[in-house]
Amino acid sequence: MKFPGIPQVAYKGGDTFSFQWYNPDEVILGKPMKEHLKFALAWWHTLCAEGSDMFGGGTVDKSFGADKSDVIAHAKAKVDAGFEIMQKLSIGYFCFHDADLVEEAPTLAESNKRLDEVTDYIKQKMDETGIKCLWGTCNAFSHKRFMAGAGTSPSADIFAYAAAKIKKAVELTVKLGGTGYVFWGGREGYETLLNTDVKFEQENLARLIRMTVEYARSIGFKGDFYIEPKPKEPSKHQYDVDVATACNFLRAHGLLGDVKMNVEANHATLAGHTFRHELRTAAVNGVFGSIDANQGDLLLGWDTDQFPSDVTDATFCMLEVLSAGGFTNGGLNFDAKTRRMSHTPEDIFHGFITGMDTYALGLRNAAKIIADGRLAQFTEQRYASYKSGIGADILSGKAGLKELEAYSMQKEPQIPDSGRQEMLEGIFNRLIFS
Amino acid sequence: MKFPGIPQVAYKGGDTFSFQWYNPDEVILGKPMKEHLKFALAWWHTLCAEGSDMFGGGTVDKSFGADKSDVIAHAKAKVDAGFEIMQKLSIGYFCFHDADLVEEAPTLAESNKRLDEVTDYIKQKMDETGIKCLWGTCNAFSHKRFMAGAGTSPSADIFAYAAAKIKKAVELTVKLGGTGYVFWGGREGYETLLNTDVKFEQENLARLIRMTVEYARSIGFKGDFYIEPKPKEPSKHQYDVDVATACNFLRAHGLLGDVKMNVEANHATLAGHTFRHELRTAAVNGVFGSIDANQGDLLLGWDTDQFPSDVTDATFCMLEVLSAGGFTNGGLNFDAKTRRMSHTPEDIFHGFITGMDTYALGLRNAAKIIADGRLAQFTEQRYASYKSGIGADILSGKAGLKELEAYSMQKEPQIPDSGRQEMLEGIFNRLIFS
Amino acid sequence: MKFPGIPQVAYKGGDTFSFQWYNPDEVILGKPMKEHLKFALAWWHTLCAEGSDMFGGGTVDKSFGADKSDVIAHAKAKVDAGFEIMQKLSIGYFCFHDADLVEEAPTLAESNKRLDEVTDYIKQKMDETGIKCLWGTCNAFSHKRFMAGAGTSPSADIFAYAAAKIKKAVELTVKLGGTGYVFWGGREGYETLLNTDVKFEQENLARLIRMTVEYARSIGFKGDFYIEPKPKEPSKHQYDVDVATACNFLRAHGLLGDVKMNVEANHATLAGHTFRHELRTAAVNGVFGSIDANQGDLLLGWDTDQFPSDVTDATFCMLEVLSAGGFTNGGLNFDAKTRRMSHTPEDIFHGFITGMDTYALGLRNAAKIIADGRLAQFTEQRYASYKSGIGADILSGKAGLKELEAYSMQKEPQIPDSGRQEMLEGIFNRLIFS
Amino acid sequence: MKFPGIPQVAYKGGDTFSFQWYNPDEVILGKPMKEHLKFALAWWHTLCAEGSDMFGGGTVDKSFGADKSDVIAHAKAKVDAGFEIMQKLSIGYFCFHDADLVEEAPTLAESNKRLDEVTDYIKQKMDETGIKCLWGTCNAFSHKRFMAGAGTSPSADIFAYAAAKIKKAVELTVKLGGTGYVFWGGREGYETLLNTDVKFEQENLARLIRMTVEYARSIGFKGDFYIEPKPKEPSKHQYDVDVATACNFLRAHGLLGDVKMNVEANHATLAGHTFRHELRTAAVNGVFGSIDANQGDLLLGWDTDQFPSDVTDATFCMLEVLSAGGFTNGGLNFDAKTRRMSHTPEDIFHGFITGMDTYALGLRNAAKIIADGRLAQFTEQRYASYKSGIGADILSGKAGLKELEAYSMQKEPQIPDSGRQEMLEGIFNRLIFS
Repeated sequence: MKFPGIPQVAYKGGDTFSFQWYNPDEVILGKPMKEHLKFALAWWHTLCAEGSDMFGGGTVDKSFGADKSDVIAHAKAKVDAGFEIMQKLSIGYFCFHDADLVEEAPTLAESNKRLDEVTDYIKQKMDETGIKCLWGTCNAFSHKRFMAGAGTSPSADIFAYAAAKIKKAVELTVKLGGTGYVFWGGREGYETLLNTDVKFEQENLARLIRMTVEYARSIGFKGDFYIEPKPKEPSKHQYDVDVATACNFLRAHGLLGDVKMNVEANHATLAGHTFRHELRTAAVNGVFGSIDANQGDLLLGWDTDQFPSDVTDATFCMLEVLSAGGFTNGGLNFDAKTRRMSHTPEDIFHGFITGMDTYALGLRNAAKIIADGRLAQFTEQRYASYKSGIGADILSGKAGLKELEAYSMQKEPQIPDSGRQEMLEGIFNRLIFS
Repeated sequence: MKFPGIPQVAYKGGDTFSFQWYNPDEVILGKPMKEHLKFALAWWHTLCAEGSDMFGGGTVDKSFGADKSDVIAHAKAKVDAGFEIMQKLSIGYFCFHDADLVEEAPTLAESNKRLDEVTDYIKQKMDETGIKCLWGTCNAFSHKRFMAGAGTSPSADIFAYAAAKIKKAVELTVKLGGTGYVFWGGREGYETLLNTDVKFEQENLARLIRMTVEYARSIGFKGDFYIEPKPKEPSKHQYDVDVATACNFLRAHGLLGDVKMNVEANHATLAGHTFRHELRTAAVNGVFGSIDANQGDLLLGWDTDQFPSDVTDATFCMLEVLSAGGFTNGGLNFDAKTRRMSHTPEDIFHGFITGMDTYALGLRNAAKIIADGRLAQFTEQRYASYKSGIGADILSGKAGLKELEAYSMQKEPQIPDSGRQEMLEGIFNRLIFS
Repeated sequence: MKFPGIPQVAYKGGDTFSFQWYNPDEVILGKPMKEHLKFALAWWHTLCAEGSDMFGGGTVDKSFGADKSDVIAHAKAKVDAGFEIMQKLSIGYFCFHDADLVEEAPTLAESNKRLDEVTDYIKQKMDETGIKCLWGTCNAFSHKRFMAGAGTSPSADIFAYAAAKIKKAVELTVKLGGTGYVFWGGREGYETLLNTDVKFEQENLARLIRMTVEYARSIGFKGDFYIEPKPKEPSKHQYDVDVATACNFLRAHGLLGDVKMNVEANHATLAGHTFRHELRTAAVNGVFGSIDANQGDLLLGWDTDQFPSDVTDATFCMLEVLSAGGFTNGGLNFDAKTRRMSHTPEDIFHGFITGMDTYALGLRNAAKIIADGRLAQFTEQRYASYKSGIGADILSGKAGLKELEAYSMQKEPQIPDSGRQEMLEGIFNRLIFS
Repeated sequence: MKFPGIPQVAYKGGDTFSFQWYNPDEVILGKPMKEHLKFALAWWHTLCAEGSDMFGGGTVDKSFGADKSDVIAHAKAKVDAGFEIMQKLSIGYFCFHDADLVEEAPTLAESNKRLDEVTDYIKQKMDETGIKCLWGTCNAFSHKRFMAGAGTSPSADIFAYAAAKIKKAVELTVKLGGTGYVFWGGREGYETLLNTDVKFEQENLARLIRMTVEYARSIGFKGDFYIEPKPKEPSKHQYDVDVATACNFLRAHGLLGDVKMNVEANHATLAGHTFRHELRTAAVNGVFGSIDANQGDLLLGWDTDQFPSDVTDATFCMLEVLSAGGFTNGGLNFDAKTRRMSHTPEDIFHGFITGMDTYALGLRNAAKIIADGRLAQFTEQRYASYKSGIGADILSGKAGLKELEAYSMQKEPQIPDSGRQEMLEGIFNRLIFS
């Protein structure tokens, strides 16, 4: 036991080591909460990140009792800690980058060997606990060789190396039964246009994704691929700015049918959008896939990756998830880390409890809003004029500019009905706070 | 003469009513400056806008000597003023919205009659002066009937009315020989997702564009259509956020071959991008069309539409224009207004002189950079590893993940060569300041 | 009756024309809610603003049944409408600019006569209803004469004119028994440093404030003066950026004892701060005064002045108000307007109901948090090390650098205790959502 | 020699290892360029920073040929490298944090011993080369003990430890003859108001500054103290947001006469201001001191610390420096680092050459603008109405509200003269580009 002092976190226990709103097996809208929410732990933040920032070193000890110089022992201690955390919190899934599982070795072959050993151990834990892999991915941005990108590197050797790492990450994802594989282009972008051929780099990025899709399908991967949009940081400009930009890229390169989106809340706001907007855009483009749940600070210009505590945002998110039919292969991964000053093991648990409760309450609120029906009805009614007459002719294609001019010559239009934003905001508040 | 005190603005006259860098007939890279730059006057800012803002009324008199209650006389006075400005400044083109030309009448039929009369007068002036129409467009955002959008209005009658107005605007564009027609979706977006069906609204917007393309081609329009991206303002969210988002929309609705981009500098920065980035994105997607030149304030969150004075930005812009092969149907429209405190006719001329000189110097700089060659060579050389060996195999499709893993097992990659950003920035400065 | 179809808005009526949380006479923490909250209506947004924005004209009719060409009749119709709205919503206060009350006349003398007539009528209504004036102010930013500032105008004549207008506004405030007078420097700043003498302008601004304080006291004004900080818009830079900047200005010119702050929520976020931060800064500097309650959109760069619906923000605000001892002369003015698409009289009521309920719930939440005590206790406990030993020596001045070095040579410090942010966020959510 | 391949960088050498505009001994406005500019190297970025960011490790080797496990040898290698860089670039000054000079030891006593040894070596190099120390400072933000602040730490022991470190840093500054001592409050702020007592923390911060001033003066320090404002990063909120906020803090605690400002370009823009604005604000408040020259990216929300290449900004900066009378104890420190992809020693030199040339050209431009005189004359003339008549009465205090009302009753004011922003921008461009 890595956290002997921390109890199993139960629903409605009352104290801060209990859930107030997350009751995994409670059925809401015909499905247990745990199936609606499909919470996942992010290996990197929870088991690796030690609290360093650009102005200071680590504040948290993530050795979990192991001697960190013994990389395999440390990697296994992280597995033990991770599974204990997931079990104590009733988290059913995890997500990982290759580099999170075990420190990379000097050679690719040796790194892969280490990964094999650690994933054997993880697989055994999975069998024991029933915990599953939501998705895997490859870290092709931290090592200095990727300073100028992986798929978009100006060096063909580095493209090749990234491809080799991705191959292994896909294989590990399949081995662990992951239902998703994510591309996050942390260095796929540019620092300055003074030295960058954008067209060439984007074509290479498309090549790398296409290769990965083909290889993964060839070894039996049945899950989803996801791009995770982010506009900037670490690069000045990253090619996958937001959902619409990533969709344009996928469409331009014939990849739209192959790749969906892993939408991150904090990346949405860095791109100047609400999280809800990005989820809706994914749905409109048919690429809703999975979610990285966290929370940024709209007054700060970088990814803060806070554990979510904004219930309004979580409610909007769950409304979109429910309206998109719920998760299939995707889920809700906490791409979140405790604050640098929250440096104890207890804080990890508090972070998850606050985050899971926030989304559990978001789900309960969304269900209440759907049951109430007023918000959806208002929206539907607003477009009623397209159901008949000239509106129907517009939709069917019967009316073109000439017909619409003739119509308008006869009938000066009224102004539209009030949008009733203040009333709708009031109804929303009454539903979530009562 | 509306501006009797203001002289013809000549090259190298020395005082502030002369050009320092713009010499219309001087040949640069095989073409006269005026053909490279294709400057245009925007009817709205120059002839209509009177300096009001959200906290105060107009500061500038734009009656141009006419009695404003006589709408036709005032409209014609604006024509006279506009052509005098263009002639004194050697501006060869203008751009317009229907509503800029003459105040709208209570009925569509009457408005159209007014537009016919005023455009007859404009046409006559065009014949006399050789000045041309760069593009026309329709104002479907100012009147309160468009408060909830035009093509995306929840009211079918308003969609119809917008279509009727667009029909006329297209006809006027053809009548005046315009080589472009622009869509700016000033209210095509949303204020709140609490009452908005994004998918339906975007489909309707696509319908309206499709109808317009079909009708315009049917009456002989041979020019280009453009979307003008902008992320926000006046709407909280506008559907045409930036070039990539607009391209995604066009691709999704089968319109990519029909519509290009009119890229505005200030809208680029509101979307979180550099102007150069947006121009490059247009080129990469094959939709580079025309430019709205102005300048925002990156510390302010709204469209300030200043006359451009940033020579670095203008240089980057002209590098992209030259690299895209120069303007064909498009040009460089000054979507710019004098500051609210610059309330005299002289200020209009100062604004244009500063703006035109800024772009003229930008063109001269771009030509110098191209002639120098170092920046382009550095970029090309950076990707040299793709010309042979494993790089060539990546491009040709010969190498997939398996081959690249095998290659990487043999060869640990070096880190990429230095990006030399500081050196390139220094070279750039030496070229533009020497 | 201007709004015959709209009922008296009552507590817990159930439908959208009732309060869910605002119960004026309910006692919370020893005081009726209406005394804690001191809600005020802003004459300008509610009775004057017609929904225009930079890209379009008005959408709302604010004639209130009067013929707008009869300025006095229209002004009185606004009074009638305003008092009906306040009575139906149980709003006890109003705030005004001179120019809101009645359209300005061509001369100062005539304008003042109009103001006398309209304020006579208002006074009579006040006597009938018991409704009070929270504060008055002078609009010295809308007219084109103020394009370059009022107190900071480069023209001495305009400084003089602003002073004359302020004199009258102060007199009207006294006449109506207002307990506050506000300075909002909407044009007190600059557009460009190329033509601005910042030092001179700031000294003049201080002169104008000093004159106003002296005159107001001389005619018996006993209330508070407030600066209302805002960083930008309409000016590129406004001198009263935020609370700390305004305090620095007041201290530099010996005015700190005379002037407090009217803190606006939306201006706080435009300055890059949370609303709570600005309130706390006011308290730390001893200048907490009054509040302009509204809500901005952190993804937009301008003042949206929305009716508040964010309960978390309202809770934080009321925590600060309670901790500062509550309002004395100040109150909570809704500097908020309905959205441009919310164009009916019903929307005005919905806006206020949502806003008032949001703050009423904020007050209830704040009271719950105070009663619970955990958040305050945690904070207090965090600084416990200063109560004795070396901490006490630091506070008392007994320990200087030498003593602290000697102490530290003996005792290598521990890292500080966890800040427990995630736990505290969880506790906060449990308190406000349960 | 650490950089044998890199030549002495000379003026007008022609290639990229020469200066285009920096000619140290050339006299401009009566003073050699080197005395106007007082360039300094920042120990941390140039000799310590290895290119890591939040998403990846180092890319640059800063061992300078030493075995990094021998901390003293490595520290001395950095000294050698630093002096070679400064000599080859004709840089006359350096700046340092204690922690930059040599890795901290497990105990304070041992750290201090290391610092003594390394500064002995530096002093010897200074004597040999004539290079001077511009300012010193203390790193009280990187170590995890400072995670919750130094002077604002909730732990008195940590306050004490910070004080002890600052004592040593002040002593080292005196030993090396530094003419300045800087406070940068990298963790003096808060992450969340849920656990923070702002008033108490700010009072403690003032205590720490007061102790430092007293101690430094007691050991003979004759130089200037500086606060270096920054609004955020690493903390969510830092107490020294900008110059005005820092001045308010100093005034509130009686420290204004003791402490000036070290204004950083990139921090200015993070606070929402132009660099020029912050310099002007410092001058207006009488606290202009020293400069940290670098350049941010206004489209990014974090401190990018780029080497400056924006000549317009540098010109504005030098105009302010000249107008404030030039540097006395302060200078121009390059708080700048090469981009992460610029990973070779050559890039360090390119960074400095581009930065120094940018400021040298800025100085040349500023001198040209002053000689031309038009910009200053325009500004002075703009306020001419205050030189006599009612304007003079306002300044002298003869006119108060009553007199100004009487005056305005007689004379309806004109609108102010045009601000001529576009003309001034054009003049500026002609001066800097011709």
